[in-house]
Amino acid sequence: MYLEKINSPEDIKNFTAQQREELAAEMRAAMLKRASVHGGHFGPDFGIVEAVIALHTVFDSPKDKFVFDISHQALTGRKDAYLYAEHYDDVSGYTNPEESEHDMFNVGHTSTSISLATGLAKARDLKGDKENIIAIIGDGSMSGGEALEGLDTAGEMDSNLIILFNDNDMSIAEVHGGMYKGFKELRDTNGKSERNLFKAMGLDYRFVADGNDAEALIAVFDEVKDIDHPVVVHIVTQKGKGYKFAEENKEDWHWHMPFDIETGEVKQPMVDPYAEQTAKTFLQMAKDDEKFIAISAATPSSMNLTPARRQELGNHYIDVGIAEEQAVAMASGLARNGAHPVFGDYASFFQRTYDQLAQDVCVNNSPATFLVFWASMYGMNDVTHLGFYDIPMMSNIPNLVYLAPTSPEEYQAMLDWAIPQEKYPVAIRVPHMMVGSSNRPVRKSYDELNKYEVVKEGSRVAIIGLGNFYNLAEDAAVKLKEHGIEATLINPLFISGQDKDLLEKLKANHELVVTLEDGILDGGFGEKIARFYGADKMKVLNFGLAKKFYDRYDYEALAKENHLTAVQVAEDILANL
Amino acid sequence: MYLEKINSPEDIKNFTAQQREELAAEMRAAMLKRASVHGGHFGPDFGIVEAVIALHTVFDSPKDKFVFDISHQALTGRKDAYLYAEHYDDVSGYTNPEESEHDMFNVGHTSTSISLATGLAKARDLKGDKENIIAIIGDGSMSGGEALEGLDTAGEMDSNLIILFNDNDMSIAEVHGGMYKGFKELRDTNGKSERNLFKAMGLDYRFVADGNDAEALIAVFDEVKDIDHPVVVHIVTQKGKGYKFAEENKEDWHWHMPFDIETGEVKQPMVDPYAEQTAKTFLQMAKDDEKFIAISAATPSSMNLTPARRQELGNHYIDVGIAEEQAVAMASGLARNGAHPVFGDYASFFQRTYDQLAQDVCVNNSPATFLVFWASMYGMNDVTHLGFYDIPMMSNIPNLVYLAPTSPEEYQAMLDWAIPQEKYPVAIRVPHMMVGSSNRPVRKSYDELNKYEVVKEGSRVAIIGLGNFYNLAEDAAVKLKEHGIEATLINPLFISGQDKDLLEKLKANHELVVTLEDGILDGGFGEKIARFYGADKMKVLNFGLAKKFYDRYDYEALAKENHLTAVQVAEDILANL
Repeated sequence: MYLEKINSPEDIKNFTAQQREELAAEMRAAMLKRASVHGGHFGPDFGIVEAVIALHTVFDSPKDKFVFDISHQALTGRKDAYLYAEHYDDVSGYTNPEESEHDMFNVGHTSTSISLATGLAKARDLKGDKENIIAIIGDGSMSGGEALEGLDTAGEMDSNLIILFNDNDMSIAEVHGGMYKGFKELRDTNGKSERNLFKAMGLDYRFVADGNDAEALIAVFDEVKDIDHPVVVHIVTQKGKGYKFAEENKEDWHWHMPFDIETGEVKQPMVDPYAEQTAKTFLQMAKDDEKFIAISAATPSSMNLTPARRQELGNHYIDVGIAEEQAVAMASGLARNGAHPVFGDYASFFQRTYDQLAQDVCVNNSPATFLVFWASMYGMNDVTHLGFYDIPMMSNIPNLVYLAPTSPEEYQAMLDWAIPQEKYPVAIRVPHMMVGSSNRPVRKSYDELNKYEVVKEGSRVAIIGLGNFYNLAEDAAVKLKEHGIEATLINPLFISGQDKDLLEKLKANHELVVTLEDGILDGGFGEKIARFYGADKMKVLNFGLAKKFYDRYDYEALAKENHLTAVQVAEDILANL
Repeated sequence: MYLEKINSPEDIKNFTAQQREELAAEMRAAMLKRASVHGGHFGPDFGIVEAVIALHTVFDSPKDKFVFDISHQALTGRKDAYLYAEHYDDVSGYTNPEESEHDMFNVGHTSTSISLATGLAKARDLKGDKENIIAIIGDGSMSGGEALEGLDTAGEMDSNLIILFNDNDMSIAEVHGGMYKGFKELRDTNGKSERNLFKAMGLDYRFVADGNDAEALIAVFDEVKDIDHPVVVHIVTQKGKGYKFAEENKEDWHWHMPFDIETGEVKQPMVDPYAEQTAKTFLQMAKDDEKFIAISAATPSSMNLTPARRQELGNHYIDVGIAEEQAVAMASGLARNGAHPVFGDYASFFQRTYDQLAQDVCVNNSPATFLVFWASMYGMNDVTHLGFYDIPMMSNIPNLVYLAPTSPEEYQAMLDWAIPQEKYPVAIRVPHMMVGSSNRPVRKSYDELNKYEVVKEGSRVAIIGLGNFYNLAEDAAVKLKEHGIEATLINPLFISGQDKDLLEKLKANHELVVTLEDGILDGGFGEKIARFYGADKMKVLNFGLAKKFYDRYDYEALAKENHLTAVQVAEDILANL
């Protein structure tokens, strides 16, 4: 076995072709075993094994610098985390300079590698250094605006920069966009087609038909090493290569839950009930409303829109590929011409669309609907995918009505109201999957903007529990009751505006207003309540997360650290009465 | 004279070629006269006159729908504002559906037209309608990620969509990026070159060599009218056509102050002193520090980097074109490889880069510097270019040190500290041009994060005047003195964090803390102070702008509306003691 003995790229430089083949097989075996237990990104990582071996054979990392796009394919320097079960959890799943000297950046969003690499290259030139800079990017990521802007800048540079274009003819789901016709032609013509995006962007270009052939890759890498101008090396790889189920069902195996290696079956299947509810609502709306249209930016799984469901939606569904700016601006255009568009994506990826939300949608007051999934401290916990910065980012954009449902029933009512209405741009902060059903009556129309719901009238203390944290408000109220306090319970429903009449009325028989939000406090919901009562004698306590980047945290520990358990909330309230 | 008699596109449909030529001349004469008095966008508008005439000759607006990119070239339905001096101020300078039925959107940022048009087209198809959808976009805007994402989606669509690509070989300044090599080849080969970005994106393509020849344009528009798939019509126009000075100096005449028609000389030259200070600092730093590099995204004028200065900066300057995502991510790459990058742009355009600031820069803690110009209610006052939403957007991103200088001296100290340091990502909110010199001592290092400056110790009331509004704090304090109150005056310097020790100390002999910020209150600076004192008896008053979109407002009226005069601030303080 080679893998256990490799401790640096030096150790494989003199491998024979045969040894490289065996190493690739060992790597896939280790990756398969770990993935079956641990879950994680799968297909793209299996496709790029030979390319990584070839890169380390030809180039000298970390002097030569690799920048992986999204970066879950980058395993260099992490052998133990793939070989030994007790170390499976030691690594982040993305590049991270603190984990490996071969990692340049902590990245997890798509389409960044070329732009970051242009910066490395330009800095190298300023310093008079000579290393190779290599950006690695998949075809799915190429549709993102940041990647295309980076390609354009690269096309004007005049020193070493190598862009390894890893084309497996897939995004997370199937690829979408006109550029993929061009990539197909390039694959079909052995790189000879005139329809060449890279040449159109002013770049030199090489093609490798079999990107899973390490020897072919080494030959072309040797050719472009130390090149004096930017070049794109287009390699064709097979997503999921080496594992039958992943080769056959590429979308399912882009990222995968722990599974049985023999059958490929997931050990503990899990579907986000809110994703499922969303998909079912869409299928019904597509039948009832000719103007309905659902938009995805390459993450149909966020809404559990399986291939069969996408087919059923037909003309009422569009996937624009990894292109969030396009998704949001297109939604504005759709609304302007009378359609009822809804765009759903993970919270972290909405960060790509601040300007489109503000300018294309909200300045125009275009009645499009946006579904923000996994906006919660109980969502993805990689630092690059955190979903709880959305309230500062989105709720402070004028005209946007940002809603926070507290149950599946309320989410349904908000969907049913938001999508067909033609007055407001609306975003809905979809609850995290543990937020369960409720018997509380549900409001049907949200036309009366910023009207909060008083669920229970009490006195002395009023607790405003926003969205996911309404349940925490209820739990804290139970604790307070043990101390003889009957707190008022409020479900605010609206993140983006304040119910000033209600806040005014609370002054009559309350001395403390408490806000709970599942997101960072800075720029968030609670601070606006603190401002409202700023010059009044009413006390205000805001609960939420401290403004920080958190990485692979323990959910319970994070809650405790930020005083977000019912006991802590109640204690803090009592201490301030 | 034709122009005065035209009231709708119908009126020019049967014009002869001769009449169209005369109309174009009349339009240019009216535009020239107005621009000489009123100022505004110039070069691009003069270049596209024939294209607009040809569009209205062939297509039937508003049934057929035009979407102008940035949209200052769209004058349809605004005749009076160009013919009669008393109406010069009646229109916004951008498309606005409230001004003209021929306008589809209220836009002002670049690179949006294709994405918006794909939405219009898709909605049309859902409804079974048949109109033509025409996106108009300049070559300068084509480098923006949103435009490229839009092009990619368009390349997969299969119904009518016409993209009029107006190529005048200029952005605001000269164009930058590899794609422009391709556009030049297309111009040089009469559209025949293989290096064709549009074909690479899966699109059909037509070329018109003289885009200022209305007859040639009409011929090709007739050809593509009612086409059943997306097509790009590439036309070559002359920026500034018809006015000698604008033809000769395209960058100066992209947008122009009021000028003398005979000499082309600006009547009241005005240079933002902070832009000038920035440019001079850069020129010096480029001499002193081999690692220094200034980045622009097609707005070198924001930093008064004239062509001569850009040449002097040489390798220490890069313009990435209209590509703010690239600019910010590249800055991160530059910092990671040891350079000292600084990217300056107008506040409104930073909106394009939320995710790059958060992910590419701040998650990586890359020590790059960002200069945010015209972030003020005293900046651009078109709704699409407002610069005062930056504090909620930027200051709530973890790790970013966002500084607010209160004078040119402090701005200089912050530039001198931020650019060479290698610890923090730093943004500086550049003061608006009326913020003058001060004799106050200036801090040299900002390494002690979030340490506010107490300029004057007083009691009862503490006024925290952020950045541009520090002077307002001083003026309000003068008013308070008339009422016997010696207020404490604080220059916080840091937007992105609180000086908790100081805030704690203020409790000893103050009953009211006042915050003043030149931006919207929601998600801003003051609310964090309100949160800090939420459960304390300290009163807090936050002054700033209400969260709204404002359009072409009067500065004084807006200040009054939001209680932002010294007299109002003092009155509100007194009323709350």
